[in-house]
Amino acid sequence: MTLGDPAGIGPEIVAKSWVMREAWGLPPFFAIGDPASLRAVWSGPVAVIETPTQAAAAFPHALPCLKVADAGEVVPGVPSTDGARTAFQALEVAVGLARAGSAAGLVTAPVGKEQLYGVGFTHPGQTEFVAERCGVSPQNAVMMLAGPSLKVVPVTIHIPLAEVPAALTVDLIRARALTTVKGLQRNFGIARPRLVVAGLNPHAGEGGALGREEIEVIRPAVESLREEDMDIVGPLAADTLFHARARQTYDAALCMYHDQALIPIKTLNFDEGVNITLGLPIVRTSPDHGTAFGIAGTDSANPGAMVAALKMAAEAARSRLAYAG
Amino acid sequence: MTLGDPAGIGPEIVAKSWVMREAWGLPPFFAIGDPASLRAVWSGPVAVIETPTQAAAAFPHALPCLKVADAGEVVPGVPSTDGARTAFQALEVAVGLARAGSAAGLVTAPVGKEQLYGVGFTHPGQTEFVAERCGVSPQNAVMMLAGPSLKVVPVTIHIPLAEVPAALTVDLIRARALTTVKGLQRNFGIARPRLVVAGLNPHAGEGGALGREEIEVIRPAVESLREEDMDIVGPLAADTLFHARARQTYDAALCMYHDQALIPIKTLNFDEGVNITLGLPIVRTSPDHGTAFGIAGTDSANPGAMVAALKMAAEAARSRLAYAG
Repeated sequence: MTLGDPAGIGPEIVAKSWVMREAWGLPPFFAIGDPASLRAVWSGPVAVIETPTQAAAAFPHALPCLKVADAGEVVPGVPSTDGARTAFQALEVAVGLARAGSAAGLVTAPVGKEQLYGVGFTHPGQTEFVAERCGVSPQNAVMMLAGPSLKVVPVTIHIPLAEVPAALTVDLIRARALTTVKGLQRNFGIARPRLVVAGLNPHAGEGGALGREEIEVIRPAVESLREEDMDIVGPLAADTLFHARARQTYDAALCMYHDQALIPIKTLNFDEGVNITLGLPIVRTSPDHGTAFGIAGTDSANPGAMVAALKMAAEAARSRLAYAG
Repeated sequence: MTLGDPAGIGPEIVAKSWVMREAWGLPPFFAIGDPASLRAVWSGPVAVIETPTQAAAAFPHALPCLKVADAGEVVPGVPSTDGARTAFQALEVAVGLARAGSAAGLVTAPVGKEQLYGVGFTHPGQTEFVAERCGVSPQNAVMMLAGPSLKVVPVTIHIPLAEVPAALTVDLIRARALTTVKGLQRNFGIARPRLVVAGLNPHAGEGGALGREEIEVIRPAVESLREEDMDIVGPLAADTLFHARARQTYDAALCMYHDQALIPIKTLNFDEGVNITLGLPIVRTSPDHGTAFGIAGTDSANPGAMVAALKMAAEAARSRLAYAG
């Protein structure tokens, strides 16, 4: 579990997760970063470890932390260059350990992108960095948002809404669907995942009257996958997909753009949303929120999403052991 | 309360609403259409009335119905030309009665647009027809979706997603916001409505990196309204607006396109969503669902949204009596 930006809420929610380890039945974990960032916001016991093998023995009595860099003086809420370097270094080491099998999975705390860009980080976000270090094209690393009520995958993500229609292609939708199905099998143990696909336009285009992307792009992609025996339906009107009864009919919803996926999951599971990256050789999850510099150091950060990310990583790691595909 | 298309679920949900009049404390109402469409799906008592003034006396013992046309043989699930003519005629008469003050408000059951187009109806939907008959430009009749958890107003509605960015203008957003505030005052008795405005792009454009509509169009509209003393904030990231805590901070959310508004309301209030038209001289509501020809006649239609539409119309009518603006 990386500590993320030392001046963000990462150290606090990692510490709070450790405090709740017995009450919430959490699996053993260790932190990666600078232990000073924990001490800046928390007076509980920290066990500085030299290698991951020491973590399990320390975990019952103290929060194990692998020190990877010196963050300098940590002031919660005030990001610094040394802090950004520490966050970068922690991410690098953490991916390496997960790749090497020294950890069953990787949970990343939030980082400040602006700060990272200032110390030579060149990827759009942590997900793309992790993918590259795993030898996977960022195009093939798929972001899924998962909560207790819903799992969604946006086909396009961080692009202006005006660019979404042209960005949608049969190949892209097919690739996202295939990675999603494989990801549900490997990480969630769902043998035959059921996918639903949202339309792009109001009422899924209403037969072409409100847009033709459903006819020209989305439906051909869905039909080609169904011919390959995927359990997939759509495109369906996006506004009818996310109420309680509708959610019973599928394991994940493939959405065409950021807000179409993020609005329903955050409406339903705001404090428990987990970002899990599909398509990687390692397990990687993260809480679906940012550094929240504004409340760092005030002891008010909710560790719910971090705990959910940790639990999901553990379940995904177990599921992978059982998965033969 | 119009019966909508005689072959749709309209007659069934109107009849079921009458059955529940005491249990749910419903205000008196009367149906408009062909009583034969009620009898095709319901064996309860119908009182055919000649004028609205007879409705109140009949209501405790029978469902009052003003006959406006002959729908011919009504076969639930099988729309017909005579049925469409009846639905059209019922809407026309109902608007007239509401305009004349013979009814305190108008609740419209769902119609089949295709069927209506076949009998000379030329408006995009019932809302535009009602607006025109009230002497209001359809541009100024604003659709609000309202449920127990949330009220939303889409700034653009039934257009392809690709056309949304160009359709957004400062004037349009201002007009929708002004009608929304007035509508909340008149129909809901909220003296000083609080509005929140969603961004168009992911993360509300992230300072321009993910789209510039927030900077060039939405923010100028919001700021000009705030200078005129409106209680309005935004543009904010749409995915963070609809969870329980966020919903405490505003009375209505102004959304930039159909699914941005309809996804959260239908996720939260699928069976209770009411469409209320703001900007009209009369009260007009409708359940937020269609004719559901596929289940008509099977006694399985849920009257929840119809009942919610009726209650909201009654509350809006009461609120208007008290509103001096």
